[in-house]
Order: sequence, then C-alpha cells, then structure tokens
Amino acid sequence: MYINHKDIEDLALGATVLGAGGGGDPYITRLLAQKIIQKFGPVQLLQPFMVPDDALIIPTAFMGATTVLQEKLLNGKEAYGALKMLENYLRSKAFATMPAEAGGLNAIIPFMVAARAGIPVIDSDGMGRALPEHQMSSFHIYGISGSPMAINTEKDDYILLKVKDNYRLAEIARSLLASTGGIGNMAGYVMTGEQMKETAITGTVSFGLKLGTAIRKAIQEKGDTFEAISQVTSNSTYGRAIKLFQGKITDIERRLNNSYLRGRAVIRGIKDFSGSECIIEFQNENIIALVDNETAALVPDIITYLDAETGFPLSIEQLKYGYRVTVIGIPTPEIMRTESALQVWGPRKFGYDIDYIPLEVLEKFRAIQRANKGFLEKGGAQG
Amino acid sequence: MYINHKDIEDLALGATVLGAGGGGDPYITRLLAQKIIQKFGPVQLLQPFMVPDDALIIPTAFMGATTVLQEKLLNGKEAYGALKMLENYLRSKAFATMPAEAGGLNAIIPFMVAARAGIPVIDSDGMGRALPEHQMSSFHIYGISGSPMAINTEKDDYILLKVKDNYRLAEIARSLLASTGGIGNMAGYVMTGEQMKETAITGTVSFGLKLGTAIRKAIQEKGDTFEAISQVTSNSTYGRAIKLFQGKITDIERRLNNSYLRGRAVIRGIKDFSGSECIIEFQNENIIALVDNETAALVPDIITYLDAETGFPLSIEQLKYGYRVTVIGIPTPEIMRTESALQVWGPRKFGYDIDYIPLEVLEKFRAIQRANKGFLEKGGAQG
Repeated sequence: MYINHKDIEDLALGATVLGAGGGGDPYITRLLAQKIIQKFGPVQLLQPFMVPDDALIIPTAFMGATTVLQEKLLNGKEAYGALKMLENYLRSKAFATMPAEAGGLNAIIPFMVAARAGIPVIDSDGMGRALPEHQMSSFHIYGISGSPMAINTEKDDYILLKVKDNYRLAEIARSLLASTGGIGNMAGYVMTGEQMKETAITGTVSFGLKLGTAIRKAIQEKGDTFEAISQVTSNSTYGRAIKLFQGKITDIERRLNNSYLRGRAVIRGIKDFSGSECIIEFQNENIIALVDNETAALVPDIITYLDAETGFPLSIEQLKYGYRVTVIGIPTPEIMRTESALQVWGPRKFGYDIDYIPLEVLEKFRAIQRANKGFLEKGGAQG
Repeated sequence: MYINHKDIEDLALGATVLGAGGGGDPYITRLLAQKIIQKFGPVQLLQPFMVPDDALIIPTAFMGATTVLQEKLLNGKEAYGALKMLENYLRSKAFATMPAEAGGLNAIIPFMVAARAGIPVIDSDGMGRALPEHQMSSFHIYGISGSPMAINTEKDDYILLKVKDNYRLAEIARSLLASTGGIGNMAGYVMTGEQMKETAITGTVSFGLKLGTAIRKAIQEKGDTFEAISQVTSNSTYGRAIKLFQGKITDIERRLNNSYLRGRAVIRGIKDFSGSECIIEFQNENIIALVDNETAALVPDIITYLDAETGFPLSIEQLKYGYRVTVIGIPTPEIMRTESALQVWGPRKFGYDIDYIPLEVLEKFRAIQRANKGFLEKGGAQG
C-alpha cells in the first residue's frame, strides 16, 4: 500500500482523534508532508509482518512544545537530518522508519522522512495514540533502548545521546530542548524488525488513515462522525468507540508550564446528556473524563472531542467557551493495557491515585447504575 | 620527551600556578594519572613542529564544577571514552591529544587519555592557563569549531554535539551538565596538525612541567619559590613573573552560583608591602588584582598565589583567613594578547569596563608612581 499526498489529509484527520486532545495540530505538518510527497513520490506503508527480522528500523518524531510550531515552521528536513545522523553513527542504513507516536502531528513526520530517504513507513507505532513523554512508549515498555538517539534542534544543532536509562534520556532531551529553542526532531529507539514486531503497536497508521477517511466522508456527506468512528473502531485492534458525553463547554482552564499544558474542561450536557456535567482533565493529552463526578474514561484509553456541529475532531488547543462538543472514548489495544504498560502510562503516572479500569468496563458499570437509578426512581420492585 | 609518573607530580605543581587560582585542584587527578601511566607506560610529549600537517588532533578536557570532584572521583576512563566516541563518529583515529587548558587539573587529563590510547600529548593548549568557559580558547579565537564534541557525563552518558556556534555549544554543554550531575569529560575542538600549529599556544605543557620542577626543587631546598618561577618564566614565551604583593589574608568572600565561583580576597601587606592593601577579584580564576586601589594585573595575564611560608602554589579554594601569601603575576604569551584574543578573554568579557593593559606595563607604571612619590616626599627637586 502506498500513501500519496491525498491520503496524508485523511491520516491527519484520523491522527487528530488519536491525538487524544494533544499531540500537536497536524495541519501545518500535513501541508508540508503533502508537498514533500508530491516532490519525492508516494511512500510505501509496510505491514509489520512483511519486515525482515534483521532489518534496521529507526522511528522518527517531533519532540517538544508543539505550540512553538505556530511561530516557527518546520522545513521538513529536520527529522530526516536526525535519521541521517543516526545512520551515520550506526554505519548502517535504515530499512524503514515508523512513528514513535501515531497521534497528532507525529503520525505525519515519518512520511516526510520516508519520502526523502526513499524508504517505507511501517504500519505501527509505540504509543497507539499521543502521549506526553517519549518513554511512554511500548518500545520502552517492552525493553528497547531509546539510545542512541539523534536530535536536530530548532537552531539546527545536531545532538547524539547515548544514555542507558530511557527516563534519564527523556529528561536530558527535555533539558536540551529547553536550552535550544524548545523543539526538536529525533531519530531513536532503534530496533531490528524482530524487535519491532515484538514491541510496536500494530496497524496504528492504517487505523488512523481509516478513521480519517471515514470522518472525512461523514463530514462531506453530512453524516454522523461518531457513527463513522464507531464503525471503524469496531473492526480494529482498538475497541468500539463510546459516546461519553455531549454538551457545551462552560469552563476551560489551561496552564502552560515548561511546554506542558495542564488544565481541565467543564462541559454541561445537552440532548441525551441534559442535566449532567462532564469534566475532562488533561496533561498535554486528555487523561481522565468524569461524568457527574464518576470516572468515565482513563488513560491510556483515548478521550477525544468532536465538534458537535461540524463533526470535525478537535484538540484541546482548539476548545473554546461555548463550543458544543461530543466527547468520545476509544478503548486501546490489549498490548497497551498490560500491567507493565500501565506502569508506564497508567493513571498513576499522571498523578492519579487510582487503578486503571478499561473504558468498556466503566461504560457497562455506568449503564448498570443508570438502569438501577431508573428502576429506583420508578419505585423499585414495588413500583 | 616522555612523561612518566614522576613528571606528572611536577606537572601538577606547575599546573596549579597556571590555574591562576582556579582550574580545579590537580591533586586527585594527578594520583589517578600516575596510576594509569604506571600501568600503560610513559606518554610521549610531542613538540608541535613535529606533528604532520594532516594529523588528526583531538583535545580532551574535564568540564563542569571541579568542586564535585571532592565527592565523586573520576575513574580515569571518562575523557578516553569521549575521545573514542568522537573517533568512532569521525571514523578516524586521533594522531594525538592535547590539553584544551594547560592550567589546573586539565593539564593532567590528556595524559590519562594518551596513556590509555597509546598516543602522544602535544606540548601546547588553547588557554595557556585556566579560564572559566570553554570557548575562551585560542582554538575558538583563531577559528576552530568546537563541534563535533563528545561528552561523557557524570552518569556515564555519552553525548555528541554538533553546534555551529562555539558560544551556543558552550551554553548547550553547560545546560547538559546541569541536568546530568554537573561534571563531564569532553573530546572536541578537533583540528589538523596544521590548524593546531596556527591556533594553539605552544609549549605550555612543558612550561607547566618546568615550573613545577623548579617549584618542587625550591621547596625541597628551602629556596625561594618566587625566584624559581621568575627564572623559569624569564626563559619562556611567557614574560618574567612579577611579585605583585605579599601579605596576610584579612577577608575572603566566595559565592558559588551555578558552578561558578565568584568573590574576592583582601590581603594586608607585610614586609616590602607593609601599609598597602591588595584586592583580588575572581570568577573561578583570578581576574584582576588591585594594589592600593590601582590596577596591578588583569586577565588574561596570570594572577596566582604562593603560600608565603612553604612556597607551595595555592588555589582560591585553599585560601583561608590569616594565611600569608605571595601574589605573583605572569605575563602571558603574545598570542594571548592580540585584539581578537582580548575580545574573547579580556577584562570586558568578565564584566570589567576597562581595557587590558599588559602586566609588565602596569608594573612599570606603578614603579614610576612609586619613584615619583618618593621623590615628592623627599621634597622634589628642591629637597
């Protein structure tokens, strides 16, 4: 399967959903990637099982404050430069690149790299969505070293890091970016084809693409975006999407600290959700959704917004007071919910002293509560 | 000429003088270097003119807060590791290493590297003394790029930096060290033999060694250390040492900020200097010496201390209230006093709004003033 410049548009749309509210707006990156693919030609999207076990795989990604991208445009060579530096260091050419993060703009970056390098992109990633820290990755969870990592900074510096511990690597990279303009593009978490098959989350790129295509069609045909998403998710490694809430934003609180966006959105219910309130707390991405003060969804499951009028997926940055939004939840694949995975990106890692409960379990639990409540309101068995 | 483990002792003594009050106490580094040389054998000290023009030269150095070395001992492989990383990146073996800084412990580091790597040390450096920032270097002044630079951090991370601007390189390296334990060892300012001959300060290692040998002998024979230094300096590219002051420390003020030691020492004169006062201000190294509020010496000329009782050279860290010290000045070689050099390490770079005046000129000026004063006190021409 080859990805052309039109596919990139759909991929960007789907990647906004997988961005879980964050991950950076793929819009500008998309335009750039389209230009690059028009120049260098379509990029092969390779299924993981087609990759030889001994192939050299080098994931590529943007890192740092995505808000900086509003002022400073990428030129589309940054991550490619990082890949080349790493190849040079390793004295070996990459067989393919792949996203470290399939949500937000990082779903697009590897296509710019691949088009330029003339290599495929593998249909998998390390997060299955967007997440705020680069060791929050199945690569890290299942034992891949982030080092050696090459970084091209905002000032076009090239930096190669060999740090044994992935947490320290992330910390050093963060402090490096802080002193070099806040953003960078990296090539790292180098692995063999075999390691990729063992550690990466399979099919996430084509999943994003399918989501995007379904959303675009729904919007064009004035259909229901949520239904379209629901249909795509029900036939994937992800679970069927759940409509968590629909309402009007009555409060939105955002604090940007050290390129980390924290805050919450408060939504007052409309239609089926009239009389209810939804609170969503975010740390770059949406972390927890509460409906009437009960947990409705938890990281790593995807919590994301659709514009209730147009059906377009929305990021946290785009939310405004008064917007009508549909809040949806998408259960993540099982590889993202293992005990070792939850130790890296479960609710506790974001400061919540609660155990992860799968979205679909929470949903059933709330449905039972609603049924019980209706039953009791009708007078119970005596009614 | 070969440097054996006994020579290292003398070199450390001389390097303390060239440390100009700073540069880190070479004592611990010396013991380690002696052990390494005893294991791997003596190290050739090569005269610059003997180096082929196309030879690959890689300077090595410790960087960061020398005070950390009181708690965390080096193992002697750090700078060697940085050299190996850089060689690997360049795909070429170093013909030789050399000090980036011939004062303080950085006079010793390259000998540990060279012993292990089986290569010579070149008899030259980039500072002719110790200085607080790594772009304060004749390599930088005369056009050598600090990049690529390999750094081995306190936590044994390996980092390779390719930064176009040497100031930014120093800044990034500093912020990196701040996030990785405060100290590191680097290999960088890579150059050819030809570039080394054009940019490095010649003969500084053997000068340090000669100084050290003369000092050791003077101490052993209960001679005058200052006289010994004076003799060695008068037959070198450095100017003849000048006794700036002798007295008792009455005040010592040290502020450690971000691994930068700032402050001043106040010394009340004894013997020939009775009735006078000397103030020395430092920023890691001694920057300016004032005698009776008149400038007596200015960076980049070397201002340093001898213990007035034992004759041992002293660093700022060793100064204590009540110590009797001899303050000496050593004029630096002409290559360190050019206009372009003074723009990088002249008094203005340390925040003093004054032009550099050579030590020997200041000395003559003060001698004239003293003579005039005596003449006037005696009643002038009428007396």
